[in-house]
Amino acid sequence: MSGETVIVKAAPLEACVARIFVEHGVPQADARLVANVLVQADLWGHQSHGVLRTSWYVERLRHGVMSPVTAIDVISDRRCVAVIDGREGVGQVIAERAMRMAIAKAKEFGVGTVAVRNSNHFGTLMYYTRLATQEGCIAFMTSNGGKAMAPWGGAKNKIVGTNPWSIAAPGGARPPLMLDMANTGVARGKIYLARQRHEKIPFGWALDAEGAPTDDPAAAIAGIILPMAGHKGYAIATLMDVLAGVLPGSAFLSAVNGPYHYDKRSGCGHFITVYNIEDFIDPAAFDRRIEAFIEEIKSQPLAQGFSEIFLPGEMEARAHQRQMEEGIALPGDTWDELLKLARETGTTEQLDAARK
Amino acid sequence: MSGETVIVKAAPLEACVARIFVEHGVPQADARLVANVLVQADLWGHQSHGVLRTSWYVERLRHGVMSPVTAIDVISDRRCVAVIDGREGVGQVIAERAMRMAIAKAKEFGVGTVAVRNSNHFGTLMYYTRLATQEGCIAFMTSNGGKAMAPWGGAKNKIVGTNPWSIAAPGGARPPLMLDMANTGVARGKIYLARQRHEKIPFGWALDAEGAPTDDPAAAIAGIILPMAGHKGYAIATLMDVLAGVLPGSAFLSAVNGPYHYDKRSGCGHFITVYNIEDFIDPAAFDRRIEAFIEEIKSQPLAQGFSEIFLPGEMEARAHQRQMEEGIALPGDTWDELLKLARETGTTEQLDAARK
Repeated sequence: MSGETVIVKAAPLEACVARIFVEHGVPQADARLVANVLVQADLWGHQSHGVLRTSWYVERLRHGVMSPVTAIDVISDRRCVAVIDGREGVGQVIAERAMRMAIAKAKEFGVGTVAVRNSNHFGTLMYYTRLATQEGCIAFMTSNGGKAMAPWGGAKNKIVGTNPWSIAAPGGARPPLMLDMANTGVARGKIYLARQRHEKIPFGWALDAEGAPTDDPAAAIAGIILPMAGHKGYAIATLMDVLAGVLPGSAFLSAVNGPYHYDKRSGCGHFITVYNIEDFIDPAAFDRRIEAFIEEIKSQPLAQGFSEIFLPGEMEARAHQRQMEEGIALPGDTWDELLKLARETGTTEQLDAARK
Repeated sequence: MSGETVIVKAAPLEACVARIFVEHGVPQADARLVANVLVQADLWGHQSHGVLRTSWYVERLRHGVMSPVTAIDVISDRRCVAVIDGREGVGQVIAERAMRMAIAKAKEFGVGTVAVRNSNHFGTLMYYTRLATQEGCIAFMTSNGGKAMAPWGGAKNKIVGTNPWSIAAPGGARPPLMLDMANTGVARGKIYLARQRHEKIPFGWALDAEGAPTDDPAAAIAGIILPMAGHKGYAIATLMDVLAGVLPGSAFLSAVNGPYHYDKRSGCGHFITVYNIEDFIDPAAFDRRIEAFIEEIKSQPLAQGFSEIFLPGEMEARAHQRQMEEGIALPGDTWDELLKLARETGTTEQLDAARK
């Protein structure tokens, strides 16, 4: 049945994914959080960061490179800065706690920064930066990640991560504005998804292991992904690694491992800064201003081939709404993997109930 | 003599540019700062942000849209956040004071953020973020700017600025790592420089006023510059405007005017966050880690056509050193404009002394 799309309902899918993690030793509340982060990515249309990753995380738990029970150490906590050690726990749990700490600090000091070391892959950044927008804050967040690119001017050796980053701000009566991007021309997960879907990738996304252009996702995974905007993407990825790796005392560059390296500790670090809007401007004035900002952008004349101008994060909000109604279309391979995990954990009935 | 390059020495050029500003009512210390920012950009090889801009600023002073005497208002100053109003003063003076305030706050609280409204164009961002690296800090800074792009999916109307941003971090025994970029595929100033040099620009940088690709800098200036990395550059520019325009209570989107609109107030805003490294990690450990980071990048095998891998900011440090020895090569048009300003202010002797 490989390749056949399966339509699933979000809530029971989430319950089933949570059950799978509980069966692998993750405490119930943490398992629910991980499942919520994954299904949310699917709802936003970011399938590369969705339940596709369930099997990766399970493999990491099985290999002992991710601890099911997350026991964070607070290394330092002074005024508006905290540094925490995730001690190889579950990335989503570490990232969510770090974001909550940063929000609390922003509420007390105006700005809150939390740097994280020894964490794990946590899914999609805007899941966490969005939390801050719900508390009247603007958030910046970055993470270093598995090596994906050569430095600009370098060949062969992947030592620079995609090092994604996000900024999110409340949108007043509109959905929040959310930027969430990798510094590669394309997110590595999109190449995995293409492989999963048996599709080719466009030339220009990656070079193969010999340094030649390729449209084969498997060759691209074995080769080198190109940065976005040429040397600019390389420069951004580099500075994000300084913030998320060098500064928090975590691994950086080639020492970080991606979540698909099942038997290797991640070593990744994160860096969060949250700004409390009312320490800058009257929140009602901010809402009026951001709504006028959005209005001006959306009311512009359209370019050929476009039916609407979107704000960052708006397409995701639209996809969320649609897929909550119509269900999430999962690639057949992803469904098969979930089915396998469900069999192993005796939860096939729950998974079957998620089919729409 | 238009088009003929003139070789000048940095120190006397800077003294001459400062004199021109003093003659237009800018206090001596402020005039020296503006001249230093401009000449530093030339030394780094960023001629588009160098003394080429002297005549623009003089025009702005003459038209009364920039006040020669900068009188900043502190709107609010609470714990690690300050909001200041530049009251249409000199951008360089406002930006430098804002950065110094943010550094002082970072030293006290671990993080310092200063948001600025009603400022003016201040030259190159890394001039200011570099100041923080000299104080053991990492800095992030952004500014909104004159409208340069249509939103992604929009045509015709330029309403989104280039909204450049910078992150700078100390490099230990190496030069600091400095990222400084516009979110357009190319900085607007580079297109002005091409016009100044009577050169064509590459296709892909901009569309003309009719929405067609162009290699004519004048047509590009009348048209629309394309964002870097497609929709990603648009998304970044949008969120930077939220930080630098919406949040500080400054102008945003189409209400901001670039420095080349001599008779229009700028309305631009800035946003700075400074992180004090020792609040995160032992500074000696940071130095060791950042040096290892740089070493790993620089020791990679080279791609075809490259003779060295550079860290962000390293080429600028190299250009600085070289041009301090060999002199700055100014385009003939820039020299002619300076000569005209020198004549008007009776400082031709000083300018002539700057010729190498």
